[in-house]
Amino acid sequence: MKVGIFIGSGSDFEVVEEAVRLLEEFGVPFRLEVTSAHRSPQRTEALIREFEEKGAEVFIAAAGKAAHLAGVVSAHTIRPVIGVPVGEAGLGGLDALLSTSQMPGGIPVACMGIGKSGAVNAVLLALQILALKDPSLAEKMREYRKRMAEEVESASKKIQDKL
Amino acid sequence: MKVGIFIGSGSDFEVVEEAVRLLEEFGVPFRLEVTSAHRSPQRTEALIREFEEKGAEVFIAAAGKAAHLAGVVSAHTIRPVIGVPVGEAGLGGLDALLSTSQMPGGIPVACMGIGKSGAVNAVLLALQILALKDPSLAEKMREYRKRMAEEVESASKKIQDKL
Amino acid sequence: MKVGIFIGSGSDFEVVEEAVRLLEEFGVPFRLEVTSAHRSPQRTEALIREFEEKGAEVFIAAAGKAAHLAGVVSAHTIRPVIGVPVGEAGLGGLDALLSTSQMPGGIPVACMGIGKSGAVNAVLLALQILALKDPSLAEKMREYRKRMAEEVESASKKIQDKL
Amino acid sequence: MKVGIFIGSGSDFEVVEEAVRLLEEFGVPFRLEVTSAHRSPQRTEALIREFEEKGAEVFIAAAGKAAHLAGVVSAHTIRPVIGVPVGEAGLGGLDALLSTSQMPGGIPVACMGIGKSGAVNAVLLALQILALKDPSLAEKMREYRKRMAEEVESASKKIQDKL
Amino acid sequence: MKVGIFIGSGSDFEVVEEAVRLLEEFGVPFRLEVTSAHRSPQRTEALIREFEEKGAEVFIAAAGKAAHLAGVVSAHTIRPVIGVPVGEAGLGGLDALLSTSQMPGGIPVACMGIGKSGAVNAVLLALQILALKDPSLAEKMREYRKRMAEEVESASKKIQDKL
Amino acid sequence: MKVGIFIGSGSDFEVVEEAVRLLEEFGVPFRLEVTSAHRSPQRTEALIREFEEKGAEVFIAAAGKAAHLAGVVSAHTIRPVIGVPVGEAGLGGLDALLSTSQMPGGIPVACMGIGKSGAVNAVLLALQILALKDPSLAEKMREYRKRMAEEVESASKKIQDKL
Amino acid sequence: MKVGIFIGSGSDFEVVEEAVRLLEEFGVPFRLEVTSAHRSPQRTEALIREFEEKGAEVFIAAAGKAAHLAGVVSAHTIRPVIGVPVGEAGLGGLDALLSTSQMPGGIPVACMGIGKSGAVNAVLLALQILALKDPSLAEKMREYRKRMAEEVESASKKIQDKL
Amino acid sequence: MKVGIFIGSGSDFEVVEEAVRLLEEFGVPFRLEVTSAHRSPQRTEALIREFEEKGAEVFIAAAGKAAHLAGVVSAHTIRPVIGVPVGEAGLGGLDALLSTSQMPGGIPVACMGIGKSGAVNAVLLALQILALKDPSLAEKMREYRKRMAEEVESASKKIQDKL
Repeated sequence: MKVGIFIGSGSDFEVVEEAVRLLEEFGVPFRLEVTSAHRSPQRTEALIREFEEKGAEVFIAAAGKAAHLAGVVSAHTIRPVIGVPVGEAGLGGLDALLSTSQMPGGIPVACMGIGKSGAVNAVLLALQILALKDPSLAEKMREYRKRMAEEVESASKKIQDKL
Repeated sequence: MKVGIFIGSGSDFEVVEEAVRLLEEFGVPFRLEVTSAHRSPQRTEALIREFEEKGAEVFIAAAGKAAHLAGVVSAHTIRPVIGVPVGEAGLGGLDALLSTSQMPGGIPVACMGIGKSGAVNAVLLALQILALKDPSLAEKMREYRKRMAEEVESASKKIQDKL
Repeated sequence: MKVGIFIGSGSDFEVVEEAVRLLEEFGVPFRLEVTSAHRSPQRTEALIREFEEKGAEVFIAAAGKAAHLAGVVSAHTIRPVIGVPVGEAGLGGLDALLSTSQMPGGIPVACMGIGKSGAVNAVLLALQILALKDPSLAEKMREYRKRMAEEVESASKKIQDKL
Repeated sequence: MKVGIFIGSGSDFEVVEEAVRLLEEFGVPFRLEVTSAHRSPQRTEALIREFEEKGAEVFIAAAGKAAHLAGVVSAHTIRPVIGVPVGEAGLGGLDALLSTSQMPGGIPVACMGIGKSGAVNAVLLALQILALKDPSLAEKMREYRKRMAEEVESASKKIQDKL
Repeated sequence: MKVGIFIGSGSDFEVVEEAVRLLEEFGVPFRLEVTSAHRSPQRTEALIREFEEKGAEVFIAAAGKAAHLAGVVSAHTIRPVIGVPVGEAGLGGLDALLSTSQMPGGIPVACMGIGKSGAVNAVLLALQILALKDPSLAEKMREYRKRMAEEVESASKKIQDKL
Repeated sequence: MKVGIFIGSGSDFEVVEEAVRLLEEFGVPFRLEVTSAHRSPQRTEALIREFEEKGAEVFIAAAGKAAHLAGVVSAHTIRPVIGVPVGEAGLGGLDALLSTSQMPGGIPVACMGIGKSGAVNAVLLALQILALKDPSLAEKMREYRKRMAEEVESASKKIQDKL
Repeated sequence: MKVGIFIGSGSDFEVVEEAVRLLEEFGVPFRLEVTSAHRSPQRTEALIREFEEKGAEVFIAAAGKAAHLAGVVSAHTIRPVIGVPVGEAGLGGLDALLSTSQMPGGIPVACMGIGKSGAVNAVLLALQILALKDPSLAEKMREYRKRMAEEVESASKKIQDKL
Repeated sequence: MKVGIFIGSGSDFEVVEEAVRLLEEFGVPFRLEVTSAHRSPQRTEALIREFEEKGAEVFIAAAGKAAHLAGVVSAHTIRPVIGVPVGEAGLGGLDALLSTSQMPGGIPVACMGIGKSGAVNAVLLALQILALKDPSLAEKMREYRKRMAEEVESASKKIQDKL
């Protein structure tokens, strides 16, 4: 495995699912576990060690509310940790965003945007980090970017028809 | 000791100092340690166990930014945990307030207001919890409240002179 | 009774219902009344006294908007008071969160997170406070925590099947 | 007396002082007391009754943080109650503003802006309410408005010199 | 007429409807017009004068977004002006709340809470202002308050059945 | 063409559609393209140049989240650029509003309100800018304003029937 | 004159001063007056008409708190109106930003960023609008932009020396 | 060089200076340039290419207000990009935080906390990314972490003396 993914609860899976499929599409081995910084702290620490031993080079952690998961992971590893704030009705994810981004100096978390597109970006950032050592991954990423730019163009053409 | 206090960094001491003096005034034994959820996670866990063994019945944790300290303590103990968000210039403590209050269901943190008055209230809440078993403490708390009400009255008299 | 619960209006019951069931599950006697800091202030004060006389050791107050209920209760008792901010569409509970957490020094309120999970945590904190005097409650709480950690693990297993 | 003013602590006097001088300037009798919704609840209720008996037709209450003072006053009187949120470093008064303005249906508080200009407006609103019964007060208010408009004009002339 | 009500657009009527029915219930004559501070400024100014001449003693203005309506009305009259911020999806009414409450010193607006309960409170405040001259209105208000307190009590009884 | 419109993704079309129809109604030639500041930066720069060459005198750019589109356009042209923040569930558009309005000194963006009415205002502002050179457009704008004021009046009449 | 500038109070001059000097530097005739949407509404309307008659093609309005000034100007003219939110301690200008940007559909205001750099951008946008009719102004603007880019480069060189 | 650093203006240097010294301490070659997404867009794009050619494996971009710099860099490279929101008085960096973190899906930016400690974390994250290929860097990072934990302990000892 190359990427270790933690989600704070089973219900967060729908936030990361598209992102996980992207990881599969890029052919990068990963593991995903539900674990909570608060409700299962021992499990979380054990999984960090286990993932590290199995080769995880990057961690992704998605959680909502007072989202401590990414911070806890970063406190226990020197591998890059990417945090995905999960939003909810109410504060709309502002709580999770601040809890993930405003880390004290010393223990970095790479905070993404709130929700599904943030999870997609977490995977893309993980891939970009891995691509520093893996030219074939870099090549795939360049193609992915090209495809994105083309999709923008074809979306534009579809809108022209409505005008 | 009865109350275990953690602050996330040495600079947070000025936020809790008045509160600590209040604890001394009430004659309740306590211990205070600097420890960080992120920069010294092992130390934090070890201190929680140590404090519990030494008799801590209530924990107070003060931290700023993505303040995870109170949440981490609560994840490792079933004693009541009181969190004090420490504010800073910039977001003014909104980050610490949300990181402390918006705990996920299952692991409670008793969140106070931001800063010094929040720290004072943390100590008062700890005393009110301890007073459930200690009638003399309850008595002192009633006197404290009476004194507070009297201080309001004398503050009012001072203002009258300015009118 | 051991726990006195106030909700600011009948519609807040759905926010605390799961929490109340938890209290029943733990076998802790409680009473719940609808009362408003603003619309029924005399009733609120009378109920605080009545609950105290009947043995309430901890108070829980849930209210929305400019949520003053927990603060009013705390002003009239030296028992620990736990506040649950109730969110609504619009500001999403930020108003209730600030009105509950930002208490002035002297009168503490233990503020929980917004909404249902905050209510569950209010009950858990109340139980943790009561457990300081009641070892059997402490034992139940440890089991509850273990069960929570196990649920995280089984949630993780369910997600594995989707990958 | 016509206007009853409450401030939540002695330090709030500097927020209302200019406003109080305005009341003196308009020659409207008032009384001001420091009293806290939380630290001196009995005193607050007693003062509301006392002020009512002495003729207070409008109440003004200024308080910071989880500012409950105006709400408590409104809960105990059917006279118009004007609330002045007092700001502080940190959240800048957003907490006091929401705690004052977001009153539940049934018990109105007339919320002003944060701080000194809010206090001035509280007094002006009180005067406008009293002016409904007192034509001489209405006349003074019209003059006050005219003077304000003239001051704008002379401020403009001063700026011209700098251009 | 005694109360002049302005709403910023036809769609705001559903926000004030319950409040308007309350005014009818209290038997206080009023008039309501749709007018916009921005889209129909001349009409707004003409209606303020017209309402004043017809006897309006209090104005209520409800508007959303950058809600200037209450401020504009207050700029053109010395009668008390009550502002009701209308919320929308998105910012949830924070924009309207700040645009209504944060008036500069000199021109007061009595800001209510966001939305329907704010509109109800606007009418109640208007009635409380009018009641200063009309003892029968004061009497009705006291009964209204008593009824509210009783409704709290009967709501509480209904909840007891669910426990 | 006179007005160049960019939207950050195809899904933003529904936010600007009514605005675009208004542009057609005023008979002002325009072009609209989907292009992203981030996903298609080369395309964006190429389109800015192309639009300028084809006569675009005003640019409108609508985007959500960390909305950089309007800023990027303004960085590459000295024509007036109008930004429309697109809101979403969650933060409700506060992110897009701040990303659009808080431009550093030197490169102005004319920020509108969030969402559809902001898009309508973007088109109206563009028309008002063009009207400085085109008296017939100014005339149409005056008629549009008159019609708006009349619609307010007829909305008011409809509400009268419900009272 | 080409540009009409309004500031809500004399103290706002320091916010716009640098911007005004920029206008002088570009050699574009302007007039600046202090006038308040609330405290001097008649004066504001009269000045709008006067400025229009004297040739103002663009308006700039800077105001703080519930900043209605730009909205009022836009309601009375079909010339482009640029709003500059003026920040203060406390809410830091969020109130003025929302009051300026969140205009209802129909009456556009071009909202700038908060404070001095927002005022500079207001002037730059005004110049860019005027440049549509005045090629010499467009040429100056291109030079201004080039100079800005050069200043970035020389700032970079200065920093290199510190490394 | 391994790390390319961009700051949006010369005044941002004091925000990143400590972080830059840390990079020197770790002995990792870097380059730092002032460049603005808005005021010098060509320069920014040229520098990205230049830095890539010179070996930059990670980019760090620090900017304030509507902070687009990190987003622009990420749009032009597939190397990992770390964004540091720079706070200012007023909104305290909330604008820069949202503009940096809320990137649309497809183009990731690793957002840090606001200000100096965010800049330190940016460098630490860059080092952690580089350490994936460089075991000696990983070793230094482990020592850095150990030292941090020791500093927490010695800070704690200093506080003990004050008690």
